Amino acid sequence: MKAHKIQQAPIPMRNVGPLKISGPVLDEKVSVPLATYETPLWPSVGRGARVSALVEDGIKTTVIDERMTRSILLEADDATAAMLAVESIKSRRDDLQAVVATSSRFAKLIEMNSQIVANLIYLRLEFTTGDASGHNMVTNAADKIIPWLLSEYPQLRYSSISGNYCSDKKATAVNGILGRGKYVVSEILIPRDICERRLKTTPEKVVDLNIKKNLIGTMIAGGLRSANAHYANMLLAFYLATGQDAANIIEGSQGIVHAEVRDGDLYFSCTLPNLIVGSVGNGKGLDFVEENLRALGCKEDREPGANSRRLAAICAATVLCGELSLLAAQTNPGELMEAHIKLER
Amino acid sequence: MKAHKIQQAPIPMRNVGPLKISGPVLDEKVSVPLATYETPLWPSVGRGARVSALVEDGIKTTVIDERMTRSILLEADDATAAMLAVESIKSRRDDLQAVVATSSRFAKLIEMNSQIVANLIYLRLEFTTGDASGHNMVTNAADKIIPWLLSEYPQLRYSSISGNYCSDKKATAVNGILGRGKYVVSEILIPRDICERRLKTTPEKVVDLNIKKNLIGTMIAGGLRSANAHYANMLLAFYLATGQDAANIIEGSQGIVHAEVRDGDLYFSCTLPNLIVGSVGNGKGLDFVEENLRALGCKEDREPGANSRRLAAICAATVLCGELSLLAAQTNPGELMEAHIKLER
Amino acid sequence: MKAHKIQQAPIPMRNVGPLKISGPVLDEKVSVPLATYETPLWPSVGRGARVSALVEDGIKTTVIDERMTRSILLEADDATAAMLAVESIKSRRDDLQAVVATSSRFAKLIEMNSQIVANLIYLRLEFTTGDASGHNMVTNAADKIIPWLLSEYPQLRYSSISGNYCSDKKATAVNGILGRGKYVVSEILIPRDICERRLKTTPEKVVDLNIKKNLIGTMIAGGLRSANAHYANMLLAFYLATGQDAANIIEGSQGIVHAEVRDGDLYFSCTLPNLIVGSVGNGKGLDFVEENLRALGCKEDREPGANSRRLAAICAATVLCGELSLLAAQTNPGELMEAHIKLER
Amino acid sequence: MKAHKIQQAPIPMRNVGPLKISGPVLDEKVSVPLATYETPLWPSVGRGARVSALVEDGIKTTVIDERMTRSILLEADDATAAMLAVESIKSRRDDLQAVVATSSRFAKLIEMNSQIVANLIYLRLEFTTGDASGHNMVTNAADKIIPWLLSEYPQLRYSSISGNYCSDKKATAVNGILGRGKYVVSEILIPRDICERRLKTTPEKVVDLNIKKNLIGTMIAGGLRSANAHYANMLLAFYLATGQDAANIIEGSQGIVHAEVRDGDLYFSCTLPNLIVGSVGNGKGLDFVEENLRALGCKEDREPGANSRRLAAICAATVLCGELSLLAAQTNPGELMEAHIKLER
Repeated sequence: MKAHKIQQAPIPMRNVGPLKISGPVLDEKVSVPLATYETPLWPSVGRGARVSALVEDGIKTTVIDERMTRSILLEADDATAAMLAVESIKSRRDDLQAVVATSSRFAKLIEMNSQIVANLIYLRLEFTTGDASGHNMVTNAADKIIPWLLSEYPQLRYSSISGNYCSDKKATAVNGILGRGKYVVSEILIPRDICERRLKTTPEKVVDLNIKKNLIGTMIAGGLRSANAHYANMLLAFYLATGQDAANIIEGSQGIVHAEVRDGDLYFSCTLPNLIVGSVGNGKGLDFVEENLRALGCKEDREPGANSRRLAAICAATVLCGELSLLAAQTNPGELMEAHIKLER
Repeated sequence: MKAHKIQQAPIPMRNVGPLKISGPVLDEKVSVPLATYETPLWPSVGRGARVSALVEDGIKTTVIDERMTRSILLEADDATAAMLAVESIKSRRDDLQAVVATSSRFAKLIEMNSQIVANLIYLRLEFTTGDASGHNMVTNAADKIIPWLLSEYPQLRYSSISGNYCSDKKATAVNGILGRGKYVVSEILIPRDICERRLKTTPEKVVDLNIKKNLIGTMIAGGLRSANAHYANMLLAFYLATGQDAANIIEGSQGIVHAEVRDGDLYFSCTLPNLIVGSVGNGKGLDFVEENLRALGCKEDREPGANSRRLAAICAATVLCGELSLLAAQTNPGELMEAHIKLER
Repeated sequence: MKAHKIQQAPIPMRNVGPLKISGPVLDEKVSVPLATYETPLWPSVGRGARVSALVEDGIKTTVIDERMTRSILLEADDATAAMLAVESIKSRRDDLQAVVATSSRFAKLIEMNSQIVANLIYLRLEFTTGDASGHNMVTNAADKIIPWLLSEYPQLRYSSISGNYCSDKKATAVNGILGRGKYVVSEILIPRDICERRLKTTPEKVVDLNIKKNLIGTMIAGGLRSANAHYANMLLAFYLATGQDAANIIEGSQGIVHAEVRDGDLYFSCTLPNLIVGSVGNGKGLDFVEENLRALGCKEDREPGANSRRLAAICAATVLCGELSLLAAQTNPGELMEAHIKLER
Repeated sequence: MKAHKIQQAPIPMRNVGPLKISGPVLDEKVSVPLATYETPLWPSVGRGARVSALVEDGIKTTVIDERMTRSILLEADDATAAMLAVESIKSRRDDLQAVVATSSRFAKLIEMNSQIVANLIYLRLEFTTGDASGHNMVTNAADKIIPWLLSEYPQLRYSSISGNYCSDKKATAVNGILGRGKYVVSEILIPRDICERRLKTTPEKVVDLNIKKNLIGTMIAGGLRSANAHYANMLLAFYLATGQDAANIIEGSQGIVHAEVRDGDLYFSCTLPNLIVGSVGNGKGLDFVEENLRALGCKEDREPGANSRRLAAICAATVLCGELSLLAAQTNPGELMEAHIKLER
């Protein structure tokens, strides 16, 4: 069974930066590790990083919310019974919290949302999960909650531990609207002359392209909350380098770039409502991952959640660098291709 | 600048299988390499693989279509001028093909689709790209086409080499409807007794869960063409092990599971309309990648495209194994969590 | 200016039924007025009504939720300021309720949801609005809330009284997930022999078609929470006959049909999460509208909201009749067209 | 059975305008009838109409495409058989055209699109239908095509005459991407001083609001190709006044407003990719409908399709008037509510 032993897929990785980052979560310069087969990503993010270093506040990041979710699927006899059960369950937050506490000392139930379809109940349980991204923690919690519910509400029947209303690793609207992962905004204000010298473009051109490509272009593509150029590239590379469950780039890729000309300068921002990252948990035991997390300052002795919020803020700043750089490049015919060719030689 | 030298992110990888695969593209047993931090994926796919080996035709795979796309963004003076320009451009397929030919000997223009918004033209160029997934090839082609168009149609202006109507690495509907990547279906017919003994469930339970979770659950989550449980996990692991641009799991995750009870047995299928894979190109130079591709039989001397279609078929069969296994597990309360806990010890 | 005087568009209208309806909201037989140019709708709904009359509980209806929404759009200096303002606003529910009270004696603020994009705040205000559908009531409330907020939070700036996160008369996911209008489920259990004799089909065929057409078909169409055949037709006709703002059929059309074979019989249900109806307010002063509402028993002296919940329940039962009838017809090749031709002669 | 006789729902209707319209389809001033319970719509559209009259070219309209669709649903034994059947069917365009010809002298098959899910075939048949909106024409055509296909391809089985991949009266992406109804753009260039005097706003404010509300606001609402404020209101009123199947406002509501400041003036446009209208067919026999169509110049002796394209162009211009007027109003805090209150007195 030689073929089946554990091997390794050594993916090229490089530190890029430093990025200058400010805001409530962190205020310092940080280099970020990016693991990817798409190596032109490194200089692309690097260009954004250099711009950040030239700007007074660098990239401001704000972590607006955090939660991890699991939607369980139960059945009642009919819609009326489903409605009554959901009303009752939602009113017993403390009881549920006690059940959750038996599954983990970090998981806290913060909200419940539900959908009833026919006699089916999709109950979306929302938790904070400390420094973990929380996939296993919420599954563990659901695993305790389900038998408790079935015993308290014998009129309900088990259907699934996950009803896809979570939603994990699928393109949906629910995560953006109700929240899943960290909700982070990164912003930068770039003086016109830096925009022109370093990005070889103008604030007006970047704003115009963002409207026509990211907003209108995505809209006509039938896009779902995905007004950006390539969040996914930066997320993948950051996730692989820091031991994240990289399939969560699917939710992560759903976010919105907003840019404006402000007093002649370029305001540029990336809103990332569904950034699923953790500084502990699955994938984190590996040496290079631990080293990367330490280098990012995300293994410090802080209150639960603070390390992972820091990680999320750095990730959002990284996404901004790559997004800014690509949009700037695409405002100029030819530059992108020239850069591509040069880099790949 | 020591911190910035190229390093490696060694991601755990294991060969899983063999899977028994049949159909027009390949008819043999294949073990598949999966690189992932989420190691419970290996036994999960492995269970599906063992079921495939017990079934007469194993997993049947069909490659229905293949194409790679780039949407350029141009501007006319008004909507009427935009319409007239698009009509003219679409009528000059041969001229465009000649321009494309100067950029690559593999890229062939097969279709053009367009959207006009106000005076803006989003022209989606669709190509076959041999054995490459084709990202660079279509960008190169667009890079030749744009100057040619601007010279032939001086009334048009450049706006962007990519107008997000491609759409690359974003959750949209256009890729599923017009096509991007390989369009593959994998199917299996599992006798009831194998379903019961190996998957510890019944055909009826799997069918029922697929309807309530993958179809209805995704629908109420505001999901976009994503009626599955976790395509993304298998895609990520397969993509990392075979040198693919793994951010394309975003499109790849959009696909549909359909299951039925047929004469008491379980028919189970995965439709993957947007599987972006290649057996040559970016990310393919690395030793372990080449070795994995060779072991999969995807580096043979075949007509252009045949190796990558084989790769796509194997990938679709792998997705089916993981999808089947998880759905079967979720039909039983508790099994998933037990499996998780056992594996992670 | 003779051409500009108010005229009338007399749309054909007929009473259909009676429908047999049960459940917490009403338990009786009701005939429903339907105004439409598509007159084959009458016999189609009529067939469903006749089936309901033969079934023990008729059509059970459950009103799960009710609310009307308006999303105001404000701007802060940056994302951090936006976050802090939103946190503060959400903590002052009582103050806001007092402001709302100055705009209407029926509007009650029940929830607030928000999205922050860059420095933009989309604040979704959710109200109960008595028996009115509530469009004007929530606009009036927003009109009081905005100046109050701008005075309490001078760091915020006005951007719009509606930021499209409401969302009114547009196909979005937010209404289904957060709620807008009445959330109603209608259900029926049809014995196999009635299914065969009256609907000329079998439970299995209806269930199968619902899966393949309403669930999978809509999914591949890139549909948004719209797993049904033609909710919109029944909604339009019911809305026009009862003085509703019929452009709200757009939200209304987003809902899910779920059908199952239960012990050989047909369980059939329509979930309508966004049924926007009122028994008072705009469009209600007209004689025929008042007459229709009275005939439906929706102008009685009840607690605020009860008349409009009754109206919603009747509407949902009507939708079920039309949906059931069309699906049954489409299980048989040819029947639909024959029916069409016969009716239009 | 007195209750069941045909009655009438007399909906308030008024002629608004005239609108000044130019472009390839028509070049003249036209007053438009609007039937609605929401009477503030009349002055709102009227304000846009007055602006159009002051502008050199008025509202330019362009009809880019036209088609009506029906998706039939067939089954094969497996995905390979489905693929082979679809390939064969698509290659026999002339044979299909001949079958279509037996159903109508106006319906012409212009394109076929398909989706294969598992062993299921969703075949989207696209037709031009002369001056009819074409619902019945394409159903009649499908009714002829299905038996022909089942006889030519005995390996296929009937599943449904409509597989929801059409898609009729549901919020989907497919209609925008592949086309359904008339695809129309209306545009206007409003000098700054007219914008300021007549719309009480500035070009910059309208552009800014369109970005933040229609583009970003809809995007975060999980909207589907619906970047507008209230297309649906104008469409409903126009459809009811001209005998259209008004449930098609669901597709119609999916469209995009694009605005720009151009040399200090306001460029404002409405793109309506799915405007389903006809000047003949269902709902057209009624006296007031015929009178309205005649007054709009849509009952002239023209080549088939020309009358309905004219109707579509006028409709798109009407939508622009209402959209422009509302957006302008919402740029000013308070104006909308004041206008509402004043009009409803």
